[in-house]
Amino acid sequence: MDSLIKKICAGDVRLASRLIRDIEDKIPEAKAKIKKLYAHTGKSFIVGITGAPGAGKSTLTDALITALRKKNKTIGVLAVDPTSPFTGGAILGDRIRMQKHAEDEGVFVRSLATRGALGGLSQAAGDAIHVMEAMGKDIIIVETVGIGQQEIDIINHAHSVVVVLVPGMGDEIQTMKAGLMEIADVFVVNKANRPGANQLQTELSSMLNLASRNGAGWQPPIVMVGDAFEPAAFAEKTAELAQKIEEHHRYLIESGKLTERMHRKALAEINDALSFCLLEPVIAELTATGKMEHFAEKIKSRQADPYSVAEEIAKTFFIKQDKK
Amino acid sequence: MDSLIKKICAGDVRLASRLIRDIEDKIPEAKAKIKKLYAHTGKSFIVGITGAPGAGKSTLTDALITALRKKNKTIGVLAVDPTSPFTGGAILGDRIRMQKHAEDEGVFVRSLATRGALGGLSQAAGDAIHVMEAMGKDIIIVETVGIGQQEIDIINHAHSVVVVLVPGMGDEIQTMKAGLMEIADVFVVNKANRPGANQLQTELSSMLNLASRNGAGWQPPIVMVGDAFEPAAFAEKTAELAQKIEEHHRYLIESGKLTERMHRKALAEINDALSFCLLEPVIAELTATGKMEHFAEKIKSRQADPYSVAEEIAKTFFIKQDKK
Repeated sequence: MDSLIKKICAGDVRLASRLIRDIEDKIPEAKAKIKKLYAHTGKSFIVGITGAPGAGKSTLTDALITALRKKNKTIGVLAVDPTSPFTGGAILGDRIRMQKHAEDEGVFVRSLATRGALGGLSQAAGDAIHVMEAMGKDIIIVETVGIGQQEIDIINHAHSVVVVLVPGMGDEIQTMKAGLMEIADVFVVNKANRPGANQLQTELSSMLNLASRNGAGWQPPIVMVGDAFEPAAFAEKTAELAQKIEEHHRYLIESGKLTERMHRKALAEINDALSFCLLEPVIAELTATGKMEHFAEKIKSRQADPYSVAEEIAKTFFIKQDKK
Repeated sequence: MDSLIKKICAGDVRLASRLIRDIEDKIPEAKAKIKKLYAHTGKSFIVGITGAPGAGKSTLTDALITALRKKNKTIGVLAVDPTSPFTGGAILGDRIRMQKHAEDEGVFVRSLATRGALGGLSQAAGDAIHVMEAMGKDIIIVETVGIGQQEIDIINHAHSVVVVLVPGMGDEIQTMKAGLMEIADVFVVNKANRPGANQLQTELSSMLNLASRNGAGWQPPIVMVGDAFEPAAFAEKTAELAQKIEEHHRYLIESGKLTERMHRKALAEINDALSFCLLEPVIAELTATGKMEHFAEKIKSRQADPYSVAEEIAKTFFIKQDKK
């Protein structure tokens, strides 16, 4: 075990990859390893990138890797986006780009499948981030889709959040903006050569002005990124994005807000771990003993309702019933 | 309480709406009401409609309401899709369409916000469905976005699942198809006037043929629905969709598979209720006593890892530690 921890902390790609796969597959031993690794975490800067499917997050992440590598940062990328080419839905071009980075020892890219019960994905994402932290990556990019509570739970594992929007996505994006507005530290208007980009920028600006706290604190910048098929301009803009992310990192450190973010992250980790340690063993025991099937039958036939069943179960597992 | 139950079972829209809002807001009394209502549930047919944002699910749901109303079915609609116009991101046209149904006593449309901790959305969706069941709705349509585990958890509350695809969404949809393929009972190729619709149909057909179990059982049909701006053809096609949903219902009854689906639904309900009865009280107590903050500090400073903390918490709450 100690040798495994030492090797992962030295950046062993094979062992780190296997551990992340074990986390994904819910191999029980993985948990003990994460516990041991935990003391070696907490030094990376974790950046969440979120946005609707088709917003071009992966192409952007890819360019961001290039820009950050030029600043000699080591990078971990965790893709938990079911629509991301990193997670397997790749067209050929994306795979080729990934391979380019695969040959770079300073870049470690892994994906997480989106299957898993009861908050399991957020927990797995948190654990996979810990592995990359232990490997000593300077910056860890977590790519997720900005739809659904579970994805926002995953974003709680990040210190800084980049929200990617695309002009012309219509009123759907309006709805999403409402939720994303609150969590965004940096905005990207991607595919900014499309019609409506300036309008989207203006809308975002006025929303940000409305939301700003008397001009104090961090003002989320809006980076306008054009078409990836114009490589020079695209590289320039993604370098600007890398710059803004670094500026936000510096702001968090200098303002003391990084500590707040780390606290938020710690709370997210406790929540995930509680689900794992409280809920999963109960479900496992009920399933193994066949009681789960018995309860399902009772509910199906309306002899009992799910809450009464759950309360009955809680009584057999809990000490502190009298306290409530 | 008994009078409230009686009124909701008689279809009281105001009381049902208030109860659904209380569920969404996690008002503790709502749980007791759901427990009482539960005996009056289990008779509705619950149809999940899922697909990527922008797939046109809401327009389709709207047309489906019209088609099912012509067959004298009473309808409940629960929109848990953050991108759905039903949930608040409406453009004017959608609001007007909704209003049309709002005047129809046989239609009850409600939305659920997507905020909520730890599987809370799936639980809230399950409870809101119970309210509509108790109201005596023949068919309950649950509209959700087919991305993210939590949305798939919600689909587990349905007896029949309609998956909506759109041609030209590129390789992203490919990835999603993999997961959606297994849960779909009826496919819709929406906006089928667009280029690539026939190719998508062919691809789906061959995937379905590959997956079919020797020709036995239910073969998911593919309904090609054209542009909503050609009202006659659109109405015809959505009537066909309504027909296919009814055929699937009949198939489930005659094959005995409805019982299996109801069992699956009961399991989903137990899981949600366990999260509510086991996890939430623990988190509430830890938060109220300030222990949560204390643990977050320990984790943040790397004095402890989240799993060790959660295990420590589990020990103080659980009876059955020795059993594991």
